[in-house]
Amino acid sequence: MTQTTTSDGIRPGEVIAALPERTDARLVYIGRIRTPFRSRKECPRRGEPDGPLCTIEIDEPWRPALKGITPGTRLQVLYWMHLARRDLVQQNVEHKGALHGTFSLRSPVRPNPIASSVADVVSVAETSVTVRGLDCVDGTPLLDLKRESCAAHD
Amino acid sequence: MTQTTTSDGIRPGEVIAALPERTDARLVYIGRIRTPFRSRKECPRRGEPDGPLCTIEIDEPWRPALKGITPGTRLQVLYWMHLARRDLVQQNVEHKGALHGTFSLRSPVRPNPIASSVADVVSVAETSVTVRGLDCVDGTPLLDLKRESCAAHD
Repeated sequence: MTQTTTSDGIRPGEVIAALPERTDARLVYIGRIRTPFRSRKECPRRGEPDGPLCTIEIDEPWRPALKGITPGTRLQVLYWMHLARRDLVQQNVEHKGALHGTFSLRSPVRPNPIASSVADVVSVAETSVTVRGLDCVDGTPLLDLKRESCAAHD
Repeated sequence: MTQTTTSDGIRPGEVIAALPERTDARLVYIGRIRTPFRSRKECPRRGEPDGPLCTIEIDEPWRPALKGITPGTRLQVLYWMHLARRDLVQQNVEHKGALHGTFSLRSPVRPNPIASSVADVVSVAETSVTVRGLDCVDGTPLLDLKRESCAAHD
């Protein structure tokens, strides 16, 4: 753990961790998310229910897993924030000097950069689902879709 | 993609996929979840707000990331369902013959077995957080903690 005060994407006071060399589990990208946001700078701070249409493209062999998803379904979308660094444990998110623990934030910068968003299904095709509510950059790798539960505890 | 009708944890009609050899991203376990549930059979179907106390143990070097988490915080807990198979794309969840696409379910069996639960923080120590609301087996590997947002779209 090192206290830093310099650049390279690090803001004053932020705390970085030395990541272990080992890895413990492996992910397979199962598709890609197509959005109108071509860079992280263009992405909104959070997806909105009336946001732009985004298309979740599903790779073979996972397309049959779409069975049962229909317009109006709410989906939890898990994706990999492939552009994010992974070593910040405390972050200066508002550039104001106050440090926040990574676990108290939803920042993309985290030890395992898995994002979780909720999206409303607009239409379903054989190889893709079109939704509203996402805020990620075009081409983001997809990890999972799950039926979204209404219950908070699920 | 193969249609199966036999055993090995497969129920009638379920559809399995050939997983690709490649992997695309790697996860690091950042801790372990301690629960009273010693086997998958003992786990409740879903965690409840008044469920038993569970302790989320955080490994070095991620402990400073707990800063800002206090009793009453709601956390999204991401963990790795290390006991689940990954190749079912359609599942016969109720043993009744009706097939459901994996993406329309929250079953542990999925291409990337990442679980997402919401838990209420009861107490925080330097190396762990005690919560209610989890339903996973004792020893489950932790992937991430995030501040839970009240907004559905986040």
